[in-house]
Amino acid sequence: MRTELIFIGDELLTGAVVNSNAAYLGQKLSGMGLKVARHTAIADEPHAISQGLTEAVLRSDLVLMTGGLGPTLDDRTREVLATLFDTSLELNEQVFSELKKRYGQMQLSLKNQATIPKSAKALINPNGTAPGLILEKKGKVLIALPGVPLEMKALFEGEVLPFLKERYREETAFFSENLTFFCLSESALDPVLRKLARPDVEMGIYPSYGVLRVVLTSKNLSEIHALKKEIIAAFKENHFSSPSNTLEEAIQMELLSQGKKLAIAESCTGGRIAAALTSIAGSSGYLLGSLVTYSHAFKESLLGVAPSTLEKKGDVSSETVLEMLEGLFAKTGADYGLAVTGVAGPGGGSAALPVGTFFIAAGARGQKPLFERHYFPGNREKIQLIATSFALGLLFRCVQR
Amino acid sequence: MRTELIFIGDELLTGAVVNSNAAYLGQKLSGMGLKVARHTAIADEPHAISQGLTEAVLRSDLVLMTGGLGPTLDDRTREVLATLFDTSLELNEQVFSELKKRYGQMQLSLKNQATIPKSAKALINPNGTAPGLILEKKGKVLIALPGVPLEMKALFEGEVLPFLKERYREETAFFSENLTFFCLSESALDPVLRKLARPDVEMGIYPSYGVLRVVLTSKNLSEIHALKKEIIAAFKENHFSSPSNTLEEAIQMELLSQGKKLAIAESCTGGRIAAALTSIAGSSGYLLGSLVTYSHAFKESLLGVAPSTLEKKGDVSSETVLEMLEGLFAKTGADYGLAVTGVAGPGGGSAALPVGTFFIAAGARGQKPLFERHYFPGNREKIQLIATSFALGLLFRCVQR
Repeated sequence: MRTELIFIGDELLTGAVVNSNAAYLGQKLSGMGLKVARHTAIADEPHAISQGLTEAVLRSDLVLMTGGLGPTLDDRTREVLATLFDTSLELNEQVFSELKKRYGQMQLSLKNQATIPKSAKALINPNGTAPGLILEKKGKVLIALPGVPLEMKALFEGEVLPFLKERYREETAFFSENLTFFCLSESALDPVLRKLARPDVEMGIYPSYGVLRVVLTSKNLSEIHALKKEIIAAFKENHFSSPSNTLEEAIQMELLSQGKKLAIAESCTGGRIAAALTSIAGSSGYLLGSLVTYSHAFKESLLGVAPSTLEKKGDVSSETVLEMLEGLFAKTGADYGLAVTGVAGPGGGSAALPVGTFFIAAGARGQKPLFERHYFPGNREKIQLIATSFALGLLFRCVQR
Repeated sequence: MRTELIFIGDELLTGAVVNSNAAYLGQKLSGMGLKVARHTAIADEPHAISQGLTEAVLRSDLVLMTGGLGPTLDDRTREVLATLFDTSLELNEQVFSELKKRYGQMQLSLKNQATIPKSAKALINPNGTAPGLILEKKGKVLIALPGVPLEMKALFEGEVLPFLKERYREETAFFSENLTFFCLSESALDPVLRKLARPDVEMGIYPSYGVLRVVLTSKNLSEIHALKKEIIAAFKENHFSSPSNTLEEAIQMELLSQGKKLAIAESCTGGRIAAALTSIAGSSGYLLGSLVTYSHAFKESLLGVAPSTLEKKGDVSSETVLEMLEGLFAKTGADYGLAVTGVAGPGGGSAALPVGTFFIAAGARGQKPLFERHYFPGNREKIQLIATSFALGLLFRCVQR
C-alpha cells in the first residue's frame, strides 16, 4: 500500500511558511504503520492542483492533502476533487447549517464552504469554516484537510485517525509505544539505542527543544515492552510520561495529585514557562501565576530581590535567581517555586557570562532548592526555548523528590 | 521559466525532521524572482530518486535538490544524475585533493565523495565532505546540494546565488515590498485587494494569527508604490510596519522612541503576550514585565483586584480586566498598561461567557483606557493565540494615540 501527501499553498512554495503539516502528518502516519512515499507542495492554482492530485491518486492508494480549501481563494480544489472522484459539487445541508449556527447567516462565503463533492464524507471543522473531506473510489482514498495547522490537527486527531485505523485495519495492526525524556540530547541517546536495538522493533527518535520522544513500533508487543524497560533503565533520571508526551502535562499531573500550588519568576524566558504550563487545560488547578520580572524594578518591587544583589552580582547570577525564588515564597502562597534568569542575547553578553548562559532554581517552601547553571550558544529564540525546557525539567525533578 | 525543488531524505517523510530547507530555498528563490512551482520530498532510495529527478527535469528549467549526497548512504544519487545529464562518473581530482587536505588520506569515503558526474561543476563544501553540483544540458539546469541545513545554506549563499543571478539575469531583475496589518481578517482584506489589483503587480497574502502580510512584486517600482498607497489608505487603522514585519517590533519601536515603560497583566493568555514581546531583542528597553495572574489569589494580592469584583462579576468580566489595568498603574511605575482575561477552555464556559470570550484593556497612566470584548470560538491554543494578537493590536492603537 502506497501513501503520499499533497500540500497546497503558495506560502509553502515561497517559504513564507515552514511546512510543519508535512512533519506532523509524516509522524502520525508512519507512527501508525502507513509509510509515506512522497510529499509534494504545489501552488494554489487550479491547473497545478489538478495535475498534482491526479498524479498522486494514480500513483498511490491513500492521498492526504492539506490546504486549498479556504473561502477567499479562487477555490477550485473542491471542483478538481469532484472531477477526480466522478461526482459533482452540491450544497451539504448538514455542513451549511452547522456553519450558519456558528457564524450567522450573513457571510456569503459560508455557502461556498458548505458546497462539497456529493459523494464525499464531510468532516465538521470545529476551528474554522472549511470542512475536511474523505473521498473514495475503486479502493483509492483521498482525504482533504484545511491547511491551517491548528484546524488540520484537530480534524486529523478527531476524525481522520479513527477512519484510517478502521479502513486500513491490517496495515495499522501493530503496536507502538512512546517514551519521553527531558533534558537529554540525541547524541547521548543514540549510541545506547543502537546497542539495545532488537530486530523486530523499529525505533524512531523525534527531538524537540529539551524533550526527546522515542517511538517503538512492532507487531510483537512483548518485544516492545522488553526494549522499553531497557531504555528507561538506561535513562531513568530523564524519563517522564504523560498522555500528551509533554513535560508540562507531567508536571501538572504531579502537582494536582499532590494538591500543591506553583508560582514562577521568569526573566530571560519572558513568560514562556507560564505559556507552556498554561497550554494544558486544567493548569489553573495548581498554577497561581508567573511574575515575568523583566526589569530590575520588577525584580526588586515584586520579588524583593535586593538592589545590592542586582548591582554587585548582576541580574544574571546565582544570587539573583535564588533571591527570585525566595521572593516567590515570601510574596505568594506557593508551595513550589521556579525561577529563571539568563542572557538571551544577542546583546548583553560578556566573557564571564556569554550569551546563552542561564541560571535556574526550583524548590519546595522551606526546603533547600535545586539549582543549575547552563550555557547553550545559539540565537535568542533557541536560548529562550532551551532555558524554558531546562527550567521545566528542573521543576519536574523538584516536584518528584 | 519553471523552477522546482527536490528534497531527498527518509527523515523528511517520517516527519523526524521538519523540512526547513524547503522554506529557506523557497524564500531565497522567490525573493530573487525565481518562482517555485513545486516542492517534492522523496525517499533515500535509488528508484524513488531516479523517478523524482527525471520527472522534475522534464517539467522544469531549473531544479534544485538537497540531500542524497552523503557518504553513508547507498548513494546512487550521483549515478542517477550522471545518467540524466548524459555523462559518466569520474574522480574529480580538485575535489579529492581538497578533501584529502582537510580530512587526511585515511577516510575511504572521500574518494567516493569526490567521484561526481564528469560534466558537473563541483562546488567545494566548506562545512562537509559532499560537494555541491551544477549540471546543465539543453537549457536545463540542475543544482544538487547537501541536505544538512548548515552545509546547504553556506553553499547556496556562496556559490549558487551568484550563479543564479548570472545565469537568470533577466528573470531575477524585479522589485518587492511588504505591507503588514494587525487585527484584520483575510476575508476583509481579500475583496479590497481584488478591487485594487493592477495587471503589472503580483500580490500574495501571508496570514498568521492576528497579522496579515501582503507582498507586492513587480518589475515596475512605481506601480508597486502606487498600489501600496491605495492598500494602506483602505486599511490605515490596521496598518503597521517594522523591519521584521511583526507587531511586537512595531510596539517596541514606538515605546522606545517615546521612552515609555510598559507593564502587562495576563490571565487567559498565560504569559504569551510577554513571550511575544520578549522575542524581540532589546525589549528590556521598555518592558518592565508581565504579571501572569492566573489565580484569584494573584489577581488580588499582586494587582489589587477587589475580592468582591471577582466574586460578583467573575474573573472574566469588564470590571475585572479594568481593575487589573488599574492595579498595574497602582503597583508598578508603568507608563502604559495592558490587561487581558478570558475563557480559554475547554472547561469554564457558560451561556453568558462561552469559551472563547475575552476582555482586553490598554491605557496610558491617568488616561481613559481602550477596552474591547471579543469572542472567537476554537480550541484552547487558538483562543490563547487570538487573545494575544488582539491584545497586542489594542496596545499598538493605544501607544499610537
